[in-house]
Amino acid sequence: MGMVGGGEGAFIGEVHRMASRIDGQIDLVCGAFSSDPERSINSGRSLYLDEKRCYSDFNQMLTAEAKLPSSERMDFVAIVTPNHLHFPVAKAALEAGFHVLSDKPATYSLEEALALEKVVKQTDQLFGLTHTYTGYPMVKQAQALVASGRLGKVVKIIAEYHQGWLAASEDASSKQASWRIDPNRAGVSCCMGDIGVHAANLVEFVTGLHITELCSDLASVVNGRQLDDDGTVLMRFDNGARGTLMSSQIAVGEENNLTLRVYGELASLSWQQQEPNSLWLKQNNAPSHLYRTGVGDMATTAQAATRTPAGHPEGYLEAFANIYQDFAKQILAYERGQEVANPVPGVTDAIRGMAFIENAVAASQSETKWHPFETTKTPLKS
Amino acid sequence: MGMVGGGEGAFIGEVHRMASRIDGQIDLVCGAFSSDPERSINSGRSLYLDEKRCYSDFNQMLTAEAKLPSSERMDFVAIVTPNHLHFPVAKAALEAGFHVLSDKPATYSLEEALALEKVVKQTDQLFGLTHTYTGYPMVKQAQALVASGRLGKVVKIIAEYHQGWLAASEDASSKQASWRIDPNRAGVSCCMGDIGVHAANLVEFVTGLHITELCSDLASVVNGRQLDDDGTVLMRFDNGARGTLMSSQIAVGEENNLTLRVYGELASLSWQQQEPNSLWLKQNNAPSHLYRTGVGDMATTAQAATRTPAGHPEGYLEAFANIYQDFAKQILAYERGQEVANPVPGVTDAIRGMAFIENAVAASQSETKWHPFETTKTPLKS
Amino acid sequence: MGMVGGGEGAFIGEVHRMASRIDGQIDLVCGAFSSDPERSINSGRSLYLDEKRCYSDFNQMLTAEAKLPSSERMDFVAIVTPNHLHFPVAKAALEAGFHVLSDKPATYSLEEALALEKVVKQTDQLFGLTHTYTGYPMVKQAQALVASGRLGKVVKIIAEYHQGWLAASEDASSKQASWRIDPNRAGVSCCMGDIGVHAANLVEFVTGLHITELCSDLASVVNGRQLDDDGTVLMRFDNGARGTLMSSQIAVGEENNLTLRVYGELASLSWQQQEPNSLWLKQNNAPSHLYRTGVGDMATTAQAATRTPAGHPEGYLEAFANIYQDFAKQILAYERGQEVANPVPGVTDAIRGMAFIENAVAASQSETKWHPFETTKTPLKS
Amino acid sequence: MGMVGGGEGAFIGEVHRMASRIDGQIDLVCGAFSSDPERSINSGRSLYLDEKRCYSDFNQMLTAEAKLPSSERMDFVAIVTPNHLHFPVAKAALEAGFHVLSDKPATYSLEEALALEKVVKQTDQLFGLTHTYTGYPMVKQAQALVASGRLGKVVKIIAEYHQGWLAASEDASSKQASWRIDPNRAGVSCCMGDIGVHAANLVEFVTGLHITELCSDLASVVNGRQLDDDGTVLMRFDNGARGTLMSSQIAVGEENNLTLRVYGELASLSWQQQEPNSLWLKQNNAPSHLYRTGVGDMATTAQAATRTPAGHPEGYLEAFANIYQDFAKQILAYERGQEVANPVPGVTDAIRGMAFIENAVAASQSETKWHPFETTKTPLKS
Repeated sequence: MGMVGGGEGAFIGEVHRMASRIDGQIDLVCGAFSSDPERSINSGRSLYLDEKRCYSDFNQMLTAEAKLPSSERMDFVAIVTPNHLHFPVAKAALEAGFHVLSDKPATYSLEEALALEKVVKQTDQLFGLTHTYTGYPMVKQAQALVASGRLGKVVKIIAEYHQGWLAASEDASSKQASWRIDPNRAGVSCCMGDIGVHAANLVEFVTGLHITELCSDLASVVNGRQLDDDGTVLMRFDNGARGTLMSSQIAVGEENNLTLRVYGELASLSWQQQEPNSLWLKQNNAPSHLYRTGVGDMATTAQAATRTPAGHPEGYLEAFANIYQDFAKQILAYERGQEVANPVPGVTDAIRGMAFIENAVAASQSETKWHPFETTKTPLKS
Repeated sequence: MGMVGGGEGAFIGEVHRMASRIDGQIDLVCGAFSSDPERSINSGRSLYLDEKRCYSDFNQMLTAEAKLPSSERMDFVAIVTPNHLHFPVAKAALEAGFHVLSDKPATYSLEEALALEKVVKQTDQLFGLTHTYTGYPMVKQAQALVASGRLGKVVKIIAEYHQGWLAASEDASSKQASWRIDPNRAGVSCCMGDIGVHAANLVEFVTGLHITELCSDLASVVNGRQLDDDGTVLMRFDNGARGTLMSSQIAVGEENNLTLRVYGELASLSWQQQEPNSLWLKQNNAPSHLYRTGVGDMATTAQAATRTPAGHPEGYLEAFANIYQDFAKQILAYERGQEVANPVPGVTDAIRGMAFIENAVAASQSETKWHPFETTKTPLKS
Repeated sequence: MGMVGGGEGAFIGEVHRMASRIDGQIDLVCGAFSSDPERSINSGRSLYLDEKRCYSDFNQMLTAEAKLPSSERMDFVAIVTPNHLHFPVAKAALEAGFHVLSDKPATYSLEEALALEKVVKQTDQLFGLTHTYTGYPMVKQAQALVASGRLGKVVKIIAEYHQGWLAASEDASSKQASWRIDPNRAGVSCCMGDIGVHAANLVEFVTGLHITELCSDLASVVNGRQLDDDGTVLMRFDNGARGTLMSSQIAVGEENNLTLRVYGELASLSWQQQEPNSLWLKQNNAPSHLYRTGVGDMATTAQAATRTPAGHPEGYLEAFANIYQDFAKQILAYERGQEVANPVPGVTDAIRGMAFIENAVAASQSETKWHPFETTKTPLKS
Repeated sequence: MGMVGGGEGAFIGEVHRMASRIDGQIDLVCGAFSSDPERSINSGRSLYLDEKRCYSDFNQMLTAEAKLPSSERMDFVAIVTPNHLHFPVAKAALEAGFHVLSDKPATYSLEEALALEKVVKQTDQLFGLTHTYTGYPMVKQAQALVASGRLGKVVKIIAEYHQGWLAASEDASSKQASWRIDPNRAGVSCCMGDIGVHAANLVEFVTGLHITELCSDLASVVNGRQLDDDGTVLMRFDNGARGTLMSSQIAVGEENNLTLRVYGELASLSWQQQEPNSLWLKQNNAPSHLYRTGVGDMATTAQAATRTPAGHPEGYLEAFANIYQDFAKQILAYERGQEVANPVPGVTDAIRGMAFIENAVAASQSETKWHPFETTKTPLKS
C-alpha cells in the first residue's frame, strides 16, 4: 500500500502502519506523508522506504505509481490526513485506478461524501473506511447476536464516546488538537466529527438499524472554541427504537470510553471499548452471560477476527489490523471478480457518517426538537 | 413511629421498617397499613404491635394517637402508600401535629407538592422525603468533594436509572407494577415518577446545582401503557452545566442501575448504586482515585453514615437507615429548638421532584426543544 | 436475647445488635456488656435497656434471668467477648438453660471446643456460631450449586482472607488490635484465629468437603508480635481435592478481602465478600454466568436470605442478620421439638474451626510438610 | 531474523511473527519451521519467504545464513520449538555467530541452562528469553514503583497463573497439549514449566527480589498424566519476604489468568494480565490509585512500551512486540559496542527459570517442608 498523510508527529498514521503490518500480508511501499514536500520525503526515509517511492505530494505519488508494473505498484492508498484532504486525495486515487482505505470521517462534508459515492461508482474501485471499533471480535459477536434474534426486537440503544483530553484550552496547542478544533480542516464539528461518528457507526453496525430522526444538543464547553467539544443526540430508528448518543472530549478523566448498550425485548448487550474482550448479555430473571474473545463458539466473523487464545488480550491495534486484513481480502476477491460477505465499512457508511455529523450540528442549532435524518443533501443552513 | 401503608404484599413498607430498626432508636408503635380495615389490623398484628394501636385507617390512627400522652404517642408518621395518598395522609398527619417522613415521589402532582409546602409552613412540623440514595456514605462523600471545589466548576452531568422489570406486559400483573402504571394512583408518570425522580434528586443533591431548562423524550415502550416506562431528559443547570438523565423500567437485564457521573473542569466523579461503597475520582494525566466506604479520611457526613469497618459492605438498607437516623436526629433537634446541618430531603425537594416529573412529561409532549423548569405551577396543559 | 460483651468501644457487639434488629423478631432485653461492672451497666443504659436487666457480670445475668418467668426471660445469650471468655460464658449459659449464639472463634483452644461439645450434649441446648459470611445469599447459592453437582467433582479450592489494618505496629494500639495480638486473650493465633478460621469455615460450608491434611507457613511479619499476622495453609480434602488458604492482616491496602474459588471438573465458582451479591460460574468453552442476589431462580436457601429486589445491595449486616434470623428459627423449631434443615454453624464447626487454628499453628512450627488434620486432641506440643 | 519452529498448526510461532512485525523494524527473512523438512519448507513458502531461505532444518539454515554477506543474513534466530529443542538450537545458533531470542522455558533442564550460560559467554552473542508479560507497560510501571521505594520494604507476594484448557484428558489430544504433557519434549514439568515459570519470572522482575527457599505441592490432577498440571509453591525471598505462587492448567473456566500482588510495608500493587492496562496501588487509610497505560507521568520504561494514547487497549501482542523491539535495540547497541539499560530477560533468567521448575518439582517430591533454591546444580534426584 501507499500512504497519504501520517508524517512525523502524526498519531493515526503510525497506528495505520502498525495495524497493516501485524498479519504480514500488507507492505507499505510508498507514501506522501506530508503536505510539506521535504517532511514528506524524510518521513518515508525514516520508514525505510525505497528512496524513489518517498514522494513529495500525493499527486506525484499517484502518477508515478500508476506507471509501475502492476506487480510492483501499490495495491491501495491509505489516507490518514486531516479531514479536509480526505476527499480530494480519495477522488484522485480512485480516478488513478487505486483502491482507497480512508480514515474517518470520510470527508469534510456530506456534500463531498455524496460526490465520493459517485466517484466510487464511476471508477469501480473499492473504498473502505477505518471505523476501527467494528474490527473488535466482541463487536462482531454483538452484531451476530442481534442478527440472530437473541435480543428480540431492539427497543433502546445507548452509545457513549467520552474523552477528556480537550478539557483545557491549553491542551489544544498540540498538533493533534489544533486541526480538530479548526473548522477549515475538521469540518463543521469537532467532537461529533472526530469520535461521535464512530459511536453512530457502531450503533448501526451492531444493530443493523438506521437513524431516521434526531434531536441534538451540542456545546463548545471550552471558551473560544468554534466547534462542538461535547454533545448529546437523541435518536429514533427505522424499527421504532429510541436511542441516546453522548460524546465528549471535555469529560475530564475519561480516556477513550466508547461503550454501547443495546436493549431488546428479550435480552440486552453491553460492550466497552476499554475492556474490549468482554461482551455482556443480560436477561431478566436469569444469570448474565459474559462472552469473552476466544472462549467457546463464537460467530464466524468474531472467530475470524481473533488471533490468540482466550485470555491473551487483543487490543486496539488488533481491531485495526482486522480492518486492514478484511480490506486486503476484499481486494483479493475484487481481483477474482468476487465479493466478500462482510466488507469493511464503505461509501454508504461514509455518507451516513457525514450525514450524522451534519444532522447533529443542524439539529443542535434549531429550536425544534425532532428533525428527519437527511442523507441526500445537507441539513445545514447556508 | 406510626406507619401508613405497607401492609402484606407491599414492598417498600417492609423496607422502611427494616431500615428504621437497624440503629435501635426508632420503634414502630402503631400503623394503618392498608385501605382495607381488616387487612390493616391484621398487618399490625403480624408485626407484634399492641392490639389497640393497629388502626383500621389513618384518620383513626391520627385521632387516637394525638390523644395519647406525649411520652407514649408516636413521634412521627412514615407514609408508604401509593403516590395518590401521599399528600392527603401527610396533610392530615401534619395538621394533627405529627412530623412526617414520606416515601417519594412526595405527592401525586406538583400542585399538591406546593400545597404541602404551605401545610408544612403552617403546622411547623418536620417533613422528610426518603430519597434513599442520598443516604449512602459515598454519595455524601461525592457531595462533599464537589462542595470542596475538588472538581472545579461542574460542566457536565450524566445520571442513569435503569431497571428491566417492567419490560414485558405480563410482569405488570404484580401488585408492585399495577399501581405504578395506573394514572389514578401513580400520577402523570410511571418511570420518571418512580425512579427518574430519584436520579434527578441525586444530581441536585450531589452537585448543589439546579435544573433550569429541559428537553425531554419519554415513551411507553410496552404496548398499551398509558404512562411512560422509559425516557431521556436533557438538562441545563443554573451554573451553565449540561446534563443527561436516562431512566427506564424496560431495559431488560438491568436490576436497579442508578449511576451518576459528574464532570468538572478539574476532575470527575462516578458512582454506581449497585456497588455503592466505591466512588471514583478521575483526572486527566494522573492516576484515578478510588474512594471506598470507611477507608481513610472521609467527609464528616460520610463518616456519620458508616457503621462498619472498610470492606464490610454497607447496602441499601443501611442507606435507608441513614435517612431514618438523620430524620430522628432532626426530630430531637426540633424538640430542643435547634436545626441540624444536614437535614434529609424535605419539602423543597418534594416540590423540585414533582416539578421534575411534570416538566419532563410536559416537555416530552411538546415539539419545542427546550423548556424552562417550572416550579411554581404545573407546566402540563389541562 | 441477652448479650455478654460488646460494651462501649467494642466493634462486634454493635454489629450483633444491628444484625439482630433488622427483622424485628429479636429483642435485646438484658446484658452484661463488660468485665468492668460499672461499664457494663452504663452500656446497658445507653441501649435503653430496663435498668434491672443491665447486669454487672454474666453470672449475675444468668442467675437473674433464669429466675424470670419464661415469657419474660431472654431466649438466648449472644457472646461477643474476646476469645478467652467464649467458653466460660457459653458453658455457664448452656448450663443455666439458655441457648447460645457465640462469635467466632468458638473458644480459646481446641480442648475447650471439645469440652463445649460435651456441654452442649449434656444440656441439650442450642449452640450457634456466627460465621457471618455463610449468611450471604450468594454463599448459599454457591453451596447449592456445588451440592447439585453443577461443578462436577471438586478438585481445587482457593480461599483468601486479606486485611491490612494490622500492618503497622502502631495501629495495634487500638482496643480492637490489642486483644487480638495478645496470646492470653486471643489464643494461639491472631490472623488464623481471627479471620483465617472464617475462610476455612467458608470452604467447608460451600463445598461440603473436609480438610484431612495440611501444610502451613505462618509468620509474624510485624516485629515483636507473639502471634501470626499472616499465613498460607495448603490443604487436602476428603475427596482428594487440594486447596490453598491465604490470610493476612498485614496486607497493606486490603480492606476485608475474603474470596473463595472452587474448581470442579465441569465448572468453577468464584465469590468475593466485598461484592457479595455477585457469584461467578465459569466453564471452559462457554460464556461465564454471573448469578446476582435476587435475579432469577435461586436456591431456596439463597432466596430465604434475600430481603430486597435485585440491584438493592444486601450487605454485611444483612448477612449477619440472616445468621440471627436462622438461629431464631432454630429456637422456635426446638421449642416445637423439631429441627431445621439448615441450622447455622454449630458445635461441630466450633471444633473444626479450633482444630483448623491449632493444626495450622502446629504444622507451621514443624519441619515436616504434611500433617494430618487432628480434631480429637490438640496437635500443639506442650 | 530467522525462525526455528513455528510451522503450520503451531501457536506460539505465529505469535512471535506477529509481534516481530508490529513496529516495522524486524523482517523474517528465513526459517526452519519444522523437524519435518517438507513441512518446514512449505511453511516458509506460505510466509512468502524467499524460496532459497526456506530451510529444511536448522543446521542447514545456520550454515547457509552464515555464508551470506552480513547485510543480507539474518540478524538473530528466534526459537519457537518445543522445549527439548531450545538448547540444541540455541547452542548451534550462538556458536554460528547469531544472537538468539528464545521462547521459554529456556531449556529442557537446569543443566542445559547452565551449559547455555557458558555458550553465551564463550560466543559473546546476545541471548534473550521471551518472558512476554514483562513487556506490558503496567508491569514495567510496577517494577519502577517498587524500585522507587513507593511500597516500602516488600513483605508478601502472591502470584497466580491459572488456565483451564487442560482440565479434561480429551483436550490433551491437540498438538498444543500433546508435547506439553510429554516428559520427553516438555521436561520435568508441564504446568510449572509452561506457565508457572512465567509467574516466577514476573515476581522477580517486578520486585527485584530472589527466591531463596521454597516449599512445593504439585499434582497431576487429570488421571494418567506423568507431569504436573497444577501446583502451589510457597517461597521465601532474599529480603525475608514470603510468597505464594499458584499455577494450574486444570482450573476450569480460567483463560490465561496471570496476576501479581506485591505487598510492601507502605503500599501494595496488583496487576492482572487479562486487564493489562490497569495497575492498582493501594494503601491503608487512603484512596486506592489506579494507574492506566498512557495516563499521566509513567516510568520511562513504561512510556517506551506504550504505542497508543490512553484508552486504546494495548494487548498481548503489543507486550510481545515490546520484547522484540527491546531485543532489536540490544542488537543495535551491541553492534555499537554498547549496552542497554533494560535488556530483555536473558541467560540469568534462563537459569533462574529452569531452577524454579526443577526446585519446585524436587521439593514437591520431598517430605521436608522447606528447600533451598538451588541454581548451580539440579535438585532432582537421579
